[in-house]
Amino acid sequence: MAPERLLVIGGDAAGMSAAAQARRLRPDLRITVLEQGPDVSYSACGIPYWVGDLVSDRDRLIARTPAQFAAQDIDVRTGTRAEGIDLSAGTVHTSTGEVLGYDRLVVATGGRPTRPRIQGLDADGVHGVHRLADGSDIRAAIAAGAERAVVLGGGYIGLEMAEVLHARGLAVTVVLADPLPMAQLDPDMGERVCRAMGAMGIDVHPGEPVREIEADADGVVRAVRTDAAAYPADLVVLGLGMGPEVALAREAGLQLGSTGAIEVDRSQRSVSHPEVSAAGDCSQTFSRLTGQAMHIALGTHANKQGRVAGSVIGGRPARFAGVLGTALTKVGETEVGLTGLSSLAAERAGYDARDEIVEGTTRAGYYPGAEDITVKLISERGSGLLLGAQIVGGPGSGKRIDVFATAIWAGLTAEELAGSDLSYAPPFSPTYDPVLVAARVSSRIEQG
Amino acid sequence: MAPERLLVIGGDAAGMSAAAQARRLRPDLRITVLEQGPDVSYSACGIPYWVGDLVSDRDRLIARTPAQFAAQDIDVRTGTRAEGIDLSAGTVHTSTGEVLGYDRLVVATGGRPTRPRIQGLDADGVHGVHRLADGSDIRAAIAAGAERAVVLGGGYIGLEMAEVLHARGLAVTVVLADPLPMAQLDPDMGERVCRAMGAMGIDVHPGEPVREIEADADGVVRAVRTDAAAYPADLVVLGLGMGPEVALAREAGLQLGSTGAIEVDRSQRSVSHPEVSAAGDCSQTFSRLTGQAMHIALGTHANKQGRVAGSVIGGRPARFAGVLGTALTKVGETEVGLTGLSSLAAERAGYDARDEIVEGTTRAGYYPGAEDITVKLISERGSGLLLGAQIVGGPGSGKRIDVFATAIWAGLTAEELAGSDLSYAPPFSPTYDPVLVAARVSSRIEQG
Repeated sequence: MAPERLLVIGGDAAGMSAAAQARRLRPDLRITVLEQGPDVSYSACGIPYWVGDLVSDRDRLIARTPAQFAAQDIDVRTGTRAEGIDLSAGTVHTSTGEVLGYDRLVVATGGRPTRPRIQGLDADGVHGVHRLADGSDIRAAIAAGAERAVVLGGGYIGLEMAEVLHARGLAVTVVLADPLPMAQLDPDMGERVCRAMGAMGIDVHPGEPVREIEADADGVVRAVRTDAAAYPADLVVLGLGMGPEVALAREAGLQLGSTGAIEVDRSQRSVSHPEVSAAGDCSQTFSRLTGQAMHIALGTHANKQGRVAGSVIGGRPARFAGVLGTALTKVGETEVGLTGLSSLAAERAGYDARDEIVEGTTRAGYYPGAEDITVKLISERGSGLLLGAQIVGGPGSGKRIDVFATAIWAGLTAEELAGSDLSYAPPFSPTYDPVLVAARVSSRIEQG
Repeated sequence: MAPERLLVIGGDAAGMSAAAQARRLRPDLRITVLEQGPDVSYSACGIPYWVGDLVSDRDRLIARTPAQFAAQDIDVRTGTRAEGIDLSAGTVHTSTGEVLGYDRLVVATGGRPTRPRIQGLDADGVHGVHRLADGSDIRAAIAAGAERAVVLGGGYIGLEMAEVLHARGLAVTVVLADPLPMAQLDPDMGERVCRAMGAMGIDVHPGEPVREIEADADGVVRAVRTDAAAYPADLVVLGLGMGPEVALAREAGLQLGSTGAIEVDRSQRSVSHPEVSAAGDCSQTFSRLTGQAMHIALGTHANKQGRVAGSVIGGRPARFAGVLGTALTKVGETEVGLTGLSSLAAERAGYDARDEIVEGTTRAGYYPGAEDITVKLISERGSGLLLGAQIVGGPGSGKRIDVFATAIWAGLTAEELAGSDLSYAPPFSPTYDPVLVAARVSSRIEQG
């Protein structure tokens, strides 16, 4: 009997996790991975820091090479694009002219940078932050003398690119359609981020949707135009977020969900074609809190979802447990973390929510390097159930978001978290960590 | 009718929290606090850093002054020692010759540094790390030219004092009876701390109980003698931990628990005399995990327990929720965090426990400043219930212990934690945070 064949489309976090996990459980499987680009298992999240010269070498962003996967008997074909899936025949047509049959298929085609429908987007000097090639292109532009950069979008990629381009000496303008950067934050916290960016010398223009990218006669970018102004640019970076890359899936007939991503069950199987799995940025996921469909492009989720898909294919039941939307980033010395629902999102989800904002320090006030930290905590009125948290502050602030993420994940109330035994030592926190103060203030009000 | 009188004995974390919370709820109470020392609300935990010149000024360790409490109508009498409690009469005799009547009493007499029963402990140059006066004495000794310090004990105060004395240029020897520093850690983690101390130039002698402190003819300390050697010393620091200060309570007839501390119910009321509350380092507490009696001297617990006592006195029901034994410290660049049960403690408590150790980095491997971190996770075999965690690593490692503390507090299993949505960004963690890797490895083994 011929061995069972697993075909994986896409060789980044989700695809390679699926392949590796399936291999662990099923030494007999024949596993092939198709990757259109030159690399697998690379860290797109690291591109800003490579651009910023904080990472010396492109290859450091590559976690594992095709050769390393080959040693696990996983056949990785880079530079090979899947051009069509025939679900009834169980075959995939490739850009190299092959037709590959499969018994199990994992679609892990990833995400695609959101591109506004405006003129000039194809001008020379306009770059995404998605593939490693984008990183080399931006580095080359800087090396060639680019002095003025305009970043479109104020999400975490926008912030990170603004930070590193500023650090490399470019004049940086951030143009965003939203009224504030980091639009998942509530405005009272987003304002803090906006001010911090301004204070470090980044020119932020919120509430200005981009209308056109102007190019010169040679097709080279010259400026970014909004309704308010035209911002001169030698370099334009697209930081408008990532949508799901689903052209192949749509064409094949896999059902897409309300977010536009491939709709899957909790075991990462396509709801329309359970013999096909989908994982990572191309797939739809759900909120742990509300059950609502979400699309979040993030390597950690992709990794876990791929592992779930690979487990199921390997014969071991597994379920993805949902997301809270936890995110963490920094711009200069300002760290920004968030998890769960914002006040606005909680209201939209039908919660009777309340919120508290507390100001504190990251260390004992008398200890050197104590930095300001602001914590916002959102909880359900009455029950005290924790719904969301946001942190903006100096170095050492951001990673505290994980305590809230864990507490929300576990279904704790503000009062339960307030009683919890978090660590204390002067170099690491005040006697009452701001996390605990936020929980205590929320629970005190619940009681009062 | 005369107003009800609340008398608080002890003006540090527990006592002042009790007084402040009672005041919030009962504006009518007459509140008096007796404090034998010159200060209230000071941070004993900050003393090492003041000795280390990281804190410029003694007064920065004082959170609030008697005058600030007076503004809340709390009468704080410093330099006034409670010399006896008459429980049947409801009175307290003071060192100033007064007899104060009370309707409600809070005993918050704090802790006392553990003193070995050896000769020479009263020599000049032997210091605790308990009162602010200890800090000035040690600073004075350094200013007077002390060059060789011997620290007795390898708990967190011992480590912190070793670090700061070393940083101030003294030759530092740490002598401890336990086989390794930070005895709450399992040996496999404690060894890492011991090596780190050695690598930074601190001379560590584990497994050597101190036998005598040798003084010269003038009664000035000269050396610390163990069975193995005599270690020359101009300065000796007692870092042997803190026991409960219960002389007053014992004499009055308040019941002490198995740990030697005042036995209280979950509302911090004395089990023998419920009209008396006790809180902080003088009172006994319990493990959230096992329910067993514990004594842990720590400002955060004292603070919370005082608040519980004050709430109850103020007429609002409140309960202390127990402790996990979470602790965090650093010695040089090495951070040490722990929470819950060690492998050894889990075994003693009757758990069938398993443990996993994972090595990782604090940031994405390619990001500057990524430091090594070792995580040990202890869970119950079969159920996967998280029981304890230990972390030893470079800067940025230690505060991660709070994620485990929250997960254990909430009763999560390793698998539930492994699925949780913790933050990821290259400057803050690898795609899979070492916390998640430890949880995943534990749960994979559970499944396999």
